[in-house]
Amino acid sequence: MPSAADLGPVPDLIRRAYDPERFRADGHRVVDTLADHLARCIPPTDDDLPVIPYVAPVDALTRWPAEFPDEPAVDSDLATTLGATARDSIRLHHPRYLGHQVPPPVPGAALADAAAALLNNGMAVYEMGGASTSQEFAVIAWMVRTLGMPSTAGGLLTSGGSVGNLTALLAARQAAAGFDAWAGGAHAGPPLAVLVASTAHYSIARAVRALGWGDGGAVEVAVDDAYRMRADDLARAHAAAVAAGRRPIAVIASAGSTATGAYDPLPAIADFCESHALWLHVDGAHGASAALVPRLHHLVAGIERADSVVWDAHKLLAMPALCTAVLYKDETRSYAAFAQEASYLFAPEREWWNTGLRTVECTKRMMSTILYASLRAYGVDFFRAYVDRVFSLGQAFGARVGAASDFELAVPPDANIVVFRYRPDPSITGAALDELQATLRRRCLEAGRWYFLTTRLGGALWLRTALMNPLAGEDELDGVLDAIRGAAREVAR
Amino acid sequence: MPSAADLGPVPDLIRRAYDPERFRADGHRVVDTLADHLARCIPPTDDDLPVIPYVAPVDALTRWPAEFPDEPAVDSDLATTLGATARDSIRLHHPRYLGHQVPPPVPGAALADAAAALLNNGMAVYEMGGASTSQEFAVIAWMVRTLGMPSTAGGLLTSGGSVGNLTALLAARQAAAGFDAWAGGAHAGPPLAVLVASTAHYSIARAVRALGWGDGGAVEVAVDDAYRMRADDLARAHAAAVAAGRRPIAVIASAGSTATGAYDPLPAIADFCESHALWLHVDGAHGASAALVPRLHHLVAGIERADSVVWDAHKLLAMPALCTAVLYKDETRSYAAFAQEASYLFAPEREWWNTGLRTVECTKRMMSTILYASLRAYGVDFFRAYVDRVFSLGQAFGARVGAASDFELAVPPDANIVVFRYRPDPSITGAALDELQATLRRRCLEAGRWYFLTTRLGGALWLRTALMNPLAGEDELDGVLDAIRGAAREVAR
Repeated sequence: MPSAADLGPVPDLIRRAYDPERFRADGHRVVDTLADHLARCIPPTDDDLPVIPYVAPVDALTRWPAEFPDEPAVDSDLATTLGATARDSIRLHHPRYLGHQVPPPVPGAALADAAAALLNNGMAVYEMGGASTSQEFAVIAWMVRTLGMPSTAGGLLTSGGSVGNLTALLAARQAAAGFDAWAGGAHAGPPLAVLVASTAHYSIARAVRALGWGDGGAVEVAVDDAYRMRADDLARAHAAAVAAGRRPIAVIASAGSTATGAYDPLPAIADFCESHALWLHVDGAHGASAALVPRLHHLVAGIERADSVVWDAHKLLAMPALCTAVLYKDETRSYAAFAQEASYLFAPEREWWNTGLRTVECTKRMMSTILYASLRAYGVDFFRAYVDRVFSLGQAFGARVGAASDFELAVPPDANIVVFRYRPDPSITGAALDELQATLRRRCLEAGRWYFLTTRLGGALWLRTALMNPLAGEDELDGVLDAIRGAAREVAR
Repeated sequence: MPSAADLGPVPDLIRRAYDPERFRADGHRVVDTLADHLARCIPPTDDDLPVIPYVAPVDALTRWPAEFPDEPAVDSDLATTLGATARDSIRLHHPRYLGHQVPPPVPGAALADAAAALLNNGMAVYEMGGASTSQEFAVIAWMVRTLGMPSTAGGLLTSGGSVGNLTALLAARQAAAGFDAWAGGAHAGPPLAVLVASTAHYSIARAVRALGWGDGGAVEVAVDDAYRMRADDLARAHAAAVAAGRRPIAVIASAGSTATGAYDPLPAIADFCESHALWLHVDGAHGASAALVPRLHHLVAGIERADSVVWDAHKLLAMPALCTAVLYKDETRSYAAFAQEASYLFAPEREWWNTGLRTVECTKRMMSTILYASLRAYGVDFFRAYVDRVFSLGQAFGARVGAASDFELAVPPDANIVVFRYRPDPSITGAALDELQATLRRRCLEAGRWYFLTTRLGGALWLRTALMNPLAGEDELDGVLDAIRGAAREVAR
């Protein structure tokens, strides 16, 4: 055999890289580095530790140069690089993290993540996920049960809410377009449309444009004063879509919405969808987790009537990104989203155990293992306590803002998202009021002591916080208001 | 403040879950569990250790029930659950893993993955990725340089090759459709088409249907005897698309293809695209890594002329899933894929430091940290050695199969993918020959000692291996052929 001589033994460089004892030693160092990082972040937190070690983007680039040695440099072991990465990163476990809808992951989930990464089962076919495929069916069954969906329901995990919403819209298109849009293409039928409020997540607007429905493919439904979809406006929106020459196929409801966390009224929306043969998709990426807590369950009442639901475990189930469930009331619909097969992967018949038939991904991470192991190790009561706590933080902060004479609350919060602004004087209006919010936010960001956001609402700029850290408490809720007042005093000087 | 009494202190259940010392103790146990698992898998491997602990799908479900305790059960600590997951999973680090295009990750990357998961920076905006945004620019710069793309080039990381191909096709649509397909929708212009060989990955076919171009949106270009796209068939395919009333916007080339690893002839395809104003997208998910090795570089010559390239670090850069680069010859094109903004995230002006403007994802994993830390810790030479080794395995296995009188080689391999079949007697043909391959593969799978695949090629069923494990050697290449012969003897009895 002429090639035998060419192959030779495994090069030392490769043997050393895969050495299990090197992994063990690196692993213990990395665990200690991360544990030390975590210990600094969580309360009681050193008052001097910034929540965000802010540097301007252009300066950050020079810290992490695109220079990689042919052979490792002496200071480039994993723990050192990862420790420096932690130092330069925003600290989600810090109680003054009052920012985006990304949780401080429950720490053990990061360890499950390492196992998922090392095992690296590819998931598209059952063989490449002997444990993780079963674990995916298990966590999906638990999620379906938690939402009270019928026994016909089922679904899948996928890489993020944006991909999840796209997947659900593909299934909706195939179910409700009235023609085979998959095989025939958009031109085989009229332009399609979904009915959706302007408060929906931007991934919906993106999916509508990606699928070729254009700006007119998202027909706006009005919202009420609490930024919830007005179900009594659906008939008008439907008629408007038809009048524009479009075929409405679905209503997209939010539970809750991104900017304010508002929950759209699902029962009334479901009634409309049933009477008009529309697919109901509920984007519960953020808020479906409310179903875990009895006192919050009313927020998602009706979600069990949705044809499809997106639910991010990497939001209010405290998992690291990304871990999104796409759930269908009728699980067989999940095969409609992607209607073709790859011969090297799938037999022509439908094979429920090969989950790649139903997801955007071909190779998929073992997301299920991370959620499964976390549910077992922490228990469901932890997840209930997490959701309960962060919603309580939202309610408590909303009450504080409402009671403060120098702040305004945009709307009483449904969830753990609070939109507010600093307005010490009612004579400050318009552009000056907007500019004040932007200035105060930028000062707090650059000081690194507090992390919260801005958002546009009704054409004006507001401050916004998603209270994702259950370790935050009254000190932080009072503290951030004081910090904003303090920044205002500095600006005034 | 009425709510202060309601909030109360952080519940013990939450404090305990986030306890850094619990994380440290769990972490050391998980690292040892994973190190022990790795030690069993890598050579010298216990002869009794299955590469795949195969059980029928329906039986696997009962092993991982959808039952999660309110409080953790005594046997449900992380290390126990993750150890059991490893036990039931396919072992990619086992030298007899000769399966899908998913690598045994270089182990330290799994530790970087844990750091990425714990830090959980959300990446859509720079603030939520103070280190990882810079690291993303750095690894993208390194990849662009490695492929020899021009100084105008740049790109982004995204969650997998399927999403990457979809992203690139969105950019191609916006650049080449001749109308604003994003805002106007599909009906604002003629049906679009891409020219693509049947050997392309199924994610291309899916993306074409998802975007609303239908079956006719993928116009087939012929392949030669080596399953490479025939550049001299592009003019015919282009004319066929036009004759069918479609506007061709792009050619999709593979580097290499999924079934056989064939590299399409990029220089000739690039010439055609330039002369016909077509976008050139190269799906280099699997094979772009050949650019790292001088003796293999000819395979990807011309890739630097592509308008967009997809390159999976979770294939031949030995990273855990998912870590995909989408590279553009003109980086500004990356903004065209998604043309709108979300007010709570982005200011209206283009902000290069907010990478979410260019990806499908909103929240995105810190994929960059994993690749960045691995490049530093292992050095570029390791990655060169990895690619060199697995391509050598492919060439050596191709030579062995070619020299064996009882086996047939479908085509001399370009890459580390070999398609072959067992045919001890030339009188075995047609369905009987197909059935023989299926039977032998199933026997080997169920025995758990060897893991390889089947694929359909030219209407027939073949055996297929992607040689992803650099720890495999001559023993495995000879051994799998002997195992197939042994299975055939058993079948004959």
